[in-house]
Amino acid sequence: MKTQVAIIGAGPSGLLLGQLLHKAGIDNIIIERQPPDYVLGRIRAGVLEQGMVDLLREAGVSQRMDSEGLPHDGFELAFAGRRERIDLKQLTGGKTVMIYGQTEVTRDLMHARQASGARTFYNVKDAQLHDLKGHKPSVTFSHDGETVRLECEHIAGCDGFHGISRQSIPDGVLQEFERVYPFGWLGVLADTPPVNEELIYANHERGFALCSMRSATRTRYYVQVAAEEKVEDWPDQRFWDELKSRLPADTAARLITGPSIEKSIAPLRSFVVEPMQYGHLFLVGDAAHIVPPTGAKGLNLAASDVNTLYRILHKVYHEGRSDLLERYSELCLKRIWKAERFSWWMTSMLHKFPGTDAFSQRMQQTELDYFVGSEAGRKTIAENYVGLPYEVVE
Amino acid sequence: MKTQVAIIGAGPSGLLLGQLLHKAGIDNIIIERQPPDYVLGRIRAGVLEQGMVDLLREAGVSQRMDSEGLPHDGFELAFAGRRERIDLKQLTGGKTVMIYGQTEVTRDLMHARQASGARTFYNVKDAQLHDLKGHKPSVTFSHDGETVRLECEHIAGCDGFHGISRQSIPDGVLQEFERVYPFGWLGVLADTPPVNEELIYANHERGFALCSMRSATRTRYYVQVAAEEKVEDWPDQRFWDELKSRLPADTAARLITGPSIEKSIAPLRSFVVEPMQYGHLFLVGDAAHIVPPTGAKGLNLAASDVNTLYRILHKVYHEGRSDLLERYSELCLKRIWKAERFSWWMTSMLHKFPGTDAFSQRMQQTELDYFVGSEAGRKTIAENYVGLPYEVVE
Repeated sequence: MKTQVAIIGAGPSGLLLGQLLHKAGIDNIIIERQPPDYVLGRIRAGVLEQGMVDLLREAGVSQRMDSEGLPHDGFELAFAGRRERIDLKQLTGGKTVMIYGQTEVTRDLMHARQASGARTFYNVKDAQLHDLKGHKPSVTFSHDGETVRLECEHIAGCDGFHGISRQSIPDGVLQEFERVYPFGWLGVLADTPPVNEELIYANHERGFALCSMRSATRTRYYVQVAAEEKVEDWPDQRFWDELKSRLPADTAARLITGPSIEKSIAPLRSFVVEPMQYGHLFLVGDAAHIVPPTGAKGLNLAASDVNTLYRILHKVYHEGRSDLLERYSELCLKRIWKAERFSWWMTSMLHKFPGTDAFSQRMQQTELDYFVGSEAGRKTIAENYVGLPYEVVE
Repeated sequence: MKTQVAIIGAGPSGLLLGQLLHKAGIDNIIIERQPPDYVLGRIRAGVLEQGMVDLLREAGVSQRMDSEGLPHDGFELAFAGRRERIDLKQLTGGKTVMIYGQTEVTRDLMHARQASGARTFYNVKDAQLHDLKGHKPSVTFSHDGETVRLECEHIAGCDGFHGISRQSIPDGVLQEFERVYPFGWLGVLADTPPVNEELIYANHERGFALCSMRSATRTRYYVQVAAEEKVEDWPDQRFWDELKSRLPADTAARLITGPSIEKSIAPLRSFVVEPMQYGHLFLVGDAAHIVPPTGAKGLNLAASDVNTLYRILHKVYHEGRSDLLERYSELCLKRIWKAERFSWWMTSMLHKFPGTDAFSQRMQQTELDYFVGSEAGRKTIAENYVGLPYEVVE
């Protein structure tokens, strides 16, 4: 079996890349270890940057997002008894974010791929990448009991942090950068109306809290918990009580609770590998980098990698610009490091750090006080939150 | 002996407060442990914020500063082989800083005080503060072999970090916030022309360096050194070689060296006490807070404390507003914490931290890259560097 681009992973990055390539007449095949329902069952991000919204439109998969998604012009920071709004639209000259769940993005992309007739293999086993530095790169895997050999020209590793793509690169090639934070996020999904029209990020002496949403009737709330906490120790009532205790009183009074339909604890980690490519293999999204969720950059960073790889492959296949291939990693990493910085900074500014000293606590409060109180400071928050410009491929 | 305001310490803060009070018809006496020449011999800061420049003009001591000082519209950040200018004037809507040594400020203030006839006792011993919470506050000290008792209404503690003022406040009253940085600054004063018209703050893998100046013919250069380094181990040649190795090549090639006329190592520390007042005693400047020198905030913060205390005392004596006295600490601390934040941030961003991990190093480089590359980011640097607005006393 042959294709131009083999895509490893049918999450939103792999599907979006596949859709963009397909529309550009570049043949691609996606392989995925899990069944479609498993992919759709993962509850993830829900805040899309302007750039990702534009890219979904370009890919022709924005119809439902544009009718059901919630454009947000701002969000709130709550700290020291204050509620301060970051007016994204005004501070960035008109940019906003879109509230639309990763699950929905994935669903739309799956439908588009099905309609396009492009091939996706789900439930593949034993996938292996071959000859990454040679002349005949390929992917082998077993599917429905048969062994398949997929010959290709390029491989896009869209298979996440634990996927095989990064692990296929020989030892010693990649430099790793990592920060593990000493806490996690306990998240609850519930079919309740949001407590606030916009997101609220709360810094509180009991720890961080976030009021987010997936739609006008589905909410996503989080509280910071110790790294070693277990979901079983957090019945719904305890979660709601803890959340209320960390919100401004007027907000807590308005909170409508309900049974959780999903509840999980996620660790917080920053991670980057350099470079993001090896021979014919290009790492995309979580396969190459992880951000803590504060600032909602994970899915958006994957989308900007997809954008860069798509623009490069477009020029390779339509303009013969194969010189661009070696620049993929460098082009992506400029923007990735800035998003890593923003995610690290938002995380550092909003969470309670165990064992921190009095001076550090004051620095954290003063960071909030200064940045929120300064027009220039608010602009730095806003321009990062809506997403820095995509790198230009030329 | 009686006065309205007893001022402890004849450094720039004590002298500036005394001059402002004297001009406003408020009687004050200054006492100082050292002789005048010792005070003038201390080599300290040299970058004055717009607010301090304005305050020196208001105090009537700006004549020489206005003719000999060097107004600077910007400064440079050097990192990763780049030289990036922060255009203070353009980014802040016209604000600048003034290069004029603390020694010269002190000399001008001494002359003004001498001319005014207001009393200053130098070489005092065994100073003690009495009845700070009672009805008859006073200061006792010995001078020329005699014991003097100075009765007063208010006491301004302008005697620095090691002075008696803060130490006169009973245990348990003050909360201390402190950060000691794991390095120091080795500074050299030389009668050589500056290597650059504006200051250069350099982040380098060998450590931080700063090219500063006191005038068009006197330079002040610094290199970061380990906390345990000794001045004796740094002959001039070694200092110049190290400095050159940390500067951009074109800058290093232009550097004119010469014999050092002063050479010393200063530790870097952040320190704040709360509150900054106790009964009739008001702590001013270094007596209440220390910043690391990165960002040039030490002397300027002392000036803003002087401004606040002067405005309060003016309203106390001329408008009967004694209610304002209890607000001194709160008014000062708002601005102090923001300057502590900026100094901590500049220090964190520009120095090499021993034992730091790869992720932290990248965060530091990305902070520089992001803040310098963003208009909003440059504005946050500029507005802090020229000095945030003074607190309004009303």
